[in-house]
Parts: sequence; C-alpha cells; structure tokens
Amino acid sequence: MTKINVFDTTLRDGEQTPGVSLTLNEKLRIADKLDEIGVNVIEAGSAITSSGEREAIKSIVKENYDAEISSFARIVRDDVDAAIDCGVDSVHLVVPTSDLHIDEKLKKTREHVFNQSMNMIEYCIDHGLIVELSAEDGSRSDVEFLRNIFDCAVDIGVSRTCVCDTVGILTPERAYDLYSNLSDFGVPLSVHCHNDFGLAVANTIAGIRAGATQFHSTINGIGERAGNAALEEIVVSLKTFYKDYSTDIKLDQLYNTSRLVARLTGVYLQPNKSIVGENAFAHESGIHADGVIKNASTYEPITPEILGRKRKFVVGKHVGANGLKQNLDDLNIKYNENQFDEILGKIKYLGDLGKVVSDVDLQAIADEVLEIEQEKKITLKELSIVSGNKVIPTASVKLEIDNNDILMADVGVGPVDAAIGAVKKGISDFADIELVEYHVDAITGGTDALIDVVLKLRLDEQIISARSTQPDIINASVEAYLSGANRLLERKME
Amino acid sequence: MTKINVFDTTLRDGEQTPGVSLTLNEKLRIADKLDEIGVNVIEAGSAITSSGEREAIKSIVKENYDAEISSFARIVRDDVDAAIDCGVDSVHLVVPTSDLHIDEKLKKTREHVFNQSMNMIEYCIDHGLIVELSAEDGSRSDVEFLRNIFDCAVDIGVSRTCVCDTVGILTPERAYDLYSNLSDFGVPLSVHCHNDFGLAVANTIAGIRAGATQFHSTINGIGERAGNAALEEIVVSLKTFYKDYSTDIKLDQLYNTSRLVARLTGVYLQPNKSIVGENAFAHESGIHADGVIKNASTYEPITPEILGRKRKFVVGKHVGANGLKQNLDDLNIKYNENQFDEILGKIKYLGDLGKVVSDVDLQAIADEVLEIEQEKKITLKELSIVSGNKVIPTASVKLEIDNNDILMADVGVGPVDAAIGAVKKGISDFADIELVEYHVDAITGGTDALIDVVLKLRLDEQIISARSTQPDIINASVEAYLSGANRLLERKME
Repeated sequence: MTKINVFDTTLRDGEQTPGVSLTLNEKLRIADKLDEIGVNVIEAGSAITSSGEREAIKSIVKENYDAEISSFARIVRDDVDAAIDCGVDSVHLVVPTSDLHIDEKLKKTREHVFNQSMNMIEYCIDHGLIVELSAEDGSRSDVEFLRNIFDCAVDIGVSRTCVCDTVGILTPERAYDLYSNLSDFGVPLSVHCHNDFGLAVANTIAGIRAGATQFHSTINGIGERAGNAALEEIVVSLKTFYKDYSTDIKLDQLYNTSRLVARLTGVYLQPNKSIVGENAFAHESGIHADGVIKNASTYEPITPEILGRKRKFVVGKHVGANGLKQNLDDLNIKYNENQFDEILGKIKYLGDLGKVVSDVDLQAIADEVLEIEQEKKITLKELSIVSGNKVIPTASVKLEIDNNDILMADVGVGPVDAAIGAVKKGISDFADIELVEYHVDAITGGTDALIDVVLKLRLDEQIISARSTQPDIINASVEAYLSGANRLLERKME
Repeated sequence: MTKINVFDTTLRDGEQTPGVSLTLNEKLRIADKLDEIGVNVIEAGSAITSSGEREAIKSIVKENYDAEISSFARIVRDDVDAAIDCGVDSVHLVVPTSDLHIDEKLKKTREHVFNQSMNMIEYCIDHGLIVELSAEDGSRSDVEFLRNIFDCAVDIGVSRTCVCDTVGILTPERAYDLYSNLSDFGVPLSVHCHNDFGLAVANTIAGIRAGATQFHSTINGIGERAGNAALEEIVVSLKTFYKDYSTDIKLDQLYNTSRLVARLTGVYLQPNKSIVGENAFAHESGIHADGVIKNASTYEPITPEILGRKRKFVVGKHVGANGLKQNLDDLNIKYNENQFDEILGKIKYLGDLGKVVSDVDLQAIADEVLEIEQEKKITLKELSIVSGNKVIPTASVKLEIDNNDILMADVGVGPVDAAIGAVKKGISDFADIELVEYHVDAITGGTDALIDVVLKLRLDEQIISARSTQPDIINASVEAYLSGANRLLERKME
C-alpha cells in the first residue's frame, strides 16, 4: 500500500479563480476544514500578492495545524522573503521550465533560470524552509532540462519535486510517461494537473501510477481557467479503484467541505458535478429508481453514506411506478391502482409541459386524484409592498386563518424580506414556522424572466420543500412560503 | 485517420437529469442545433415515456435532419412499438447484461435476457429499424456473456453494438481492456460512459483507442447523477491530442450550443467547466495575464477563437501590472507610474476585503486616483415601488438629467421589471440604452442574503457591464443600470 500525500491548493490556485477573493476569516475557515479532513500540505496563498494575503497566511500559520503550511513563491527574492515573513513551514517554489515560458514570458535563458533556481533554493534552505520545487509548464518542457534541474535541486536539499501540467495538455498516456521519467530522484514527486480538457483527474492518477507520491488539487476543482484537478474526485477514485494507494482524507467530510468552499468562494457547482454535485446521488428515471429501490448498487457506484450524503428520488416525467410509490409512501399517501395510474399520468403531463414536480406539487396532485379536500388553513387575501431608494421596504398582508382575518406588517432589508417577515408574523400565533432555506435559481435573460423560488420550512420536526415560479420574485416567495406552511399545518393535524 | 461517430444523448440521458423536463419546442431547438454542429446520431428520447415525448420525437423526425434519429427502447415490445410509431430511423435497444441487473432488477435469468434480446432485435429489423444494441451495466458484466450476445446479435443484423459504463466505474486502463475485447464483431462499437468519478472523458477516449468508433455523450455532460461524458470535452481532446481520430463536429459552434442547452434545461455550468465554462479562457492572476499578453500559448492550451469564444482578463486581487495595464488601455485611461501603483493598490485592497472588481468599479477607482471628476449625467433622486398580489407592479422614478428633473412611471411583470422600465423610459429622450443581459446570481441563504446583479447595456456600438450588490433586488438592479448608463454616456461624450 503506497501512501499518497495530498497537497491542497484551494487557497492559492483555487483562489486564483477569476472573480474569487476570500477574506482572512474565510481563508481561515477553509484551512480549518482542510486540516480537519486530513490534507497533508495546505498551500495557504502567495505571500507576495498583498498585505491582506500575508495577514491571512500568518493567521493560518498561528493555528498550528497538523498540516504543513506552504506559500507559493516565484524564484524571486521578494517572493521568498514575503513567505519567510509569514512563518510558513515550506515554500512551493515555482520555476518556469518550458522554453516557451522562459523565452516569451521571462525573456531569459535556460541557464539563467537554472542558476536563479539554485540560488533561491539555497536561500530558502538557509532560512529553514522546506522546499517543494515545481516545474511550471513542466508538461511542455524538455525532459532532460527538467532532469538536470531536479538532479541539482535534490543535491542542494529540496524535499520534494513537482511537475505542473500548467495548461492541462497532458493525456493519461503522456502523463504516465512523463512522471515515470521523473520519479527517480529519491524525493517525493508531485503531480499538478489542470482540467482544460476534462482530463485532470485521469492525468493525476496516471502520474501516481507512474510513481508520484503526492498530488496537488483543489476542493471542487476550482482554479485558473477550467480549474485544477478536484481533490474529491481523485481521493474517491483512488479509494474505489486503485486500492494499492491510500490517502489520509476523511471521505465522509468531503461533501460538507465542498459546500463550505462553494459558499465562501461563490463558485457554485453544476448539479451533475462528480462526487459532490447535488444530483450525484439523485434518481429520477423510472428504470433507475426502480433498480435502486431493489438494490442500490444497480445504479450507484458507491453508497452516498460513504461521502456523508444521502440519495434522493426526484419525481418528474421520467418517474416509473416504483420510484413514485416510494415517494407517495414517504408522504403517507394511500391509493388504489386506478388512482396510482392517474397520479402517474398527471406527473408525466406536467413533465411534458417542461415543469419540475416538487414535494408540494406531488401532494397536490395526489389530493386532486384522491379527491381529498385539503382545506387550506391559511389563505392570502392581500399583499402590498412599498419599496424604493428612500423608503424602508415595507410589506402588509391580510391572511385568512380559520375564518379570521389577520392583518400584519413588517419591514426588511428588501421587499422579499419584508413580505416573508409579515407573513411569518401573521402566522406566528398559530404556528412557529421557520424558514430553513431560501433559494432562488440564477436569473438569466431579462427583467421579465420567470423566477424560480424554492424554500424549505420547518414546523417542529417536520421539514417540507415548496416552490413557486413567477416573474415577480415577491409573489413567488410568498406563494411558496404559504403552500409549504399549509402542508406543514395539515400534517400536524393528521 | 479514423472517423469517429458522435451519438448524442442530450435529449434522452441528458433529459433524465433529475429535475429537467424539456417541452416539444425546446427539444426541437436542441435537435436543430445538434444536427447543425454535425452530430451523427441524435437520440431524441425514449418513446415509451409519455405522449408528449412521442410528439416531440415525431416532430424531430419530420425535420429530415442529416443526423440519424433514434429512440431508446428496452427489450420490451411496447417500447419498440412506441419507437416505431414515432417513425425513427433507429432504436437504441438497451439490454441489462450484468448479473446484478439481471438478478436484482429484472429478476430474470441470463438465458431469458439473451432470448428476449434476440426476439426484439428481429422484431426491430422486421420493422425496418436500424438497431444499436447496448449492454447496460456492460462494464460490470461477464465479458463472455457480452461476446455471446454481440456475436448472435450481429448475425441477426444489428448495425452497431455499445457497451455502457452505466454507473461510471471504469478507469482508463480497464476501459481500454474492455473495449479491446469487444471491438472485433465487424460492426461499429460504441462507448457510453458516465462521470461519477470524473473519469468519463478519459474512459471514452480509452475506449476509442481500443477500437470503438462511436461514442455517446451529452452537451455539458448533463445526465443521470453526475452525468454523461461531455461531448465538447471529448471532441476537443481528440482534435488536440489524438490526431489519428476525427469527428464531424464544428468546434466553433460548441460554445453557443452549450449555452443553448444550459438555458433550455436550466442546468447552468460552474464557471470552471472545461471548454465551455465562463472561466475556461479567463485570466486574473498577474503571472498568467502577463504571460498571455506576451504570448497567449503560455497559459492557454488552445486559442478560444477555435471554439467561437474570446479570452477575457478579469481584474481582482491577483492582478499584476501587465494585466491591469491591458484593462486600463481597453478603457482608454491614461496614467503615470505613481497613479498606476495607486490603482493597483486599491484593487488589491478591495480583493483582500473579498470583493470582485467589475468594469465600472475599475473605472471608478481610476477616476478617483486620477482625480477625474466624472460628472454623473444621470442621478437617481427618488425611486418608489408598489407591488403585491392584487396590484400591478408599478414603479416611479425621479431622475436628474442635465439639471432637469425627469419624472417617469412604468409597470412590469414584477417590481424589478417595472423599475428598470421606468428608468429606461426616463432616459429615453437622451439616449436609447438597451438592456442586453440581465443576470442575478443564485440567491442562497435567507431572504436577507446579498443579491448580486450583473447586467450589460448597449448604447450604439458600445457595450458595458455593471454590477451592484445589495440585499434589495430592486435597488441593486436600478443602481447597476444607472452606473452602466452613466459610463456609456461619458464614453459617448469623449
């Protein structure tokens, strides 16, 4: 069993994602989590970037994590001095090694780069730093030049070497050849891959199979351009398929780590992201849901619990009998065969119209088919909003609850906040319904686009999701809130 | 040069993405585009799913595309009859072949599955259909059983075979072995991979190297769970790295195809998605932007123009001197060295606070440093909004334009629409400013979350992006609109 070290660069290469900036506290929270899940090296940033960056790195150093704390540095004295000033354990010393980078970017010679590298390595070591020497654009570099640099660097005392596929142009075959050629220097070799062609994970694993014993990655694969190799995909692939290798990573923390990084960076994941995407363990189609109910491994490569997740069944036009039964049972709905067929038909009809079917939608369809008169406990009679640039956003509602009219007003940071506040206060004498989650899908198109509000409400131990789609964000929010609240109150009365 | 056929399943496996439902017209628009970009086989859906699905497939058939039109079918007479009824060219006939699927899902025997498959193949061929026979869960099936099925199926007359990695458990090495063992039946072999571990593209390419001459994929990699192999990643990888293989796909249409599918399915991409993500050709860090300006290939694996895209430089805390100069030059801003350093310092300061720096922000910083008094042509003096469930959303504004107060009101489908309408009408005597794009990032957290509005405005040939972040969506929208409009009017006067 070969132990593979995880060098995480979420806070450096990951933060270089265009448009991402983390505050000191955000960096600390992510570093905390990385240390907790078992990352071996945390690249905390690039100390030369700014004074705020240095403060953040210093704060991370102060935490005395188990993980080694590293700073990125070019082969430039100022960069290394800034890293030393931060008190890091190690520098990730990055040397451009391709002729393209040396000639066109640095406007220098190989000889200059070689000598400057050795000078800076000695300088780092003299200052007590662990050095990981990284060949930037290594995948487009002359292998003999790389071998010369690594050879001399190891003699001087670098602790690890790294070859970067800076623009993501490796394939698994070429990665295997390249890392095979560079893994014989007696110090650990790292593989650093970018995902420009969707091959970063496969290339990283090829590098490990070729002898690299450390890899660089980021949570969620964030980073420059198409990002870096995703930590969670590599770790779970190794665990599942390449059992000769092990890492220290706690798998059951990967999902909440992913969510933390998404929230703090603002880089949200597409639902079909591997391992950590919202749909990675969701099933809609009838064939799949049916199979999973009979035996989960028919359509799940690993059980979601391993990752600290749960599977979910989504009701939509592709739903089949078994998936729908599971959902109706969960909602405690009893039906005969004809009624079941009618419910299924109505769901497929909604699907053909391009509609998504939510929890509350499904219950409404079932009620209609089963001719259950669900008396709405709460009815919205009137909603008025006043807002503007010199007005405190204010909402008033008239709700009918148990044949009584309730009038209530509230203010908020914006009109939606005011409206939901007024509704919540209006209901509060009857039930204390908590808004657990409020989500609006990204709005794209024009100001008249349909807005999809999905929220989750809690009453005691019951949680329900509800949804509304309208071009008016305030009305959509209130409608979703009230439809969820009514369902919660019905359940309570049952 | 081996020609590789592209079998696109965006409209079948892609539409099975939990929560995705396409209307007939949406399916038609996507099919149109798939045919236009050179897809060889369009799997239009699964005819048995619903009547709406059948109508959609029939409409696609009627278009007489160059592409072959296919329907998914199980080895069930009803499924095939539904496909025949739609008039498709071919069926994608899917047979569960792993013992897990046969025993646990179907509760049948290998013999039953074998016989039923042959019966249905004959039935399809008798009805004039091209048959592609797919082994579901093929990657976990006994290879000898697969060979028996394929052998007999080819004898009977299937046109293509396919092995599905239904739960995404292949690795490139195992994919190579598997497809090598099954590519000798004298008909094209297809590779169908899922992306549960982030390996779908590498596995698909391994299958092609092993002798498969067709692959299944979806636009943006949408599909069940973590989705299918992404068409754009495979096609561009083959084009760039595996030059012995060619496809008919028009690369310069991939980006707009991706955007169309994202918009119609509502499955938006993370910015770091390979090839088609918003950041795939964006550069923020100083080192990278500097390199790209000197020679784009230093930090770009291929030029974005190949994909019908453009590169962009993003200003943020990682920006370096050359990247910032490029941005200031683009904005026609003149500065001396001290002023430049001050601008850079302010950007890094904003970055340390966790702020993103937009077009208009950068110009505002430059103005402040250069002590340019940019007289705002338009000032918002007052904005009032009335809305509710029984009120037509109505907005009134008082704008000061050239020392004149302009009063204007408008209605809209929601309060934001009304407010932007009133502002636009108020300005219309001075300039006809068009709202080209309106985008709100997904809102997550609570109703008091900060809302990030980014919009693009056009005046004559000039386009500018502007942004505002506030907890009030109406004020954020109006502020972004006016800051963009003022910049456009300044530029016009220059």
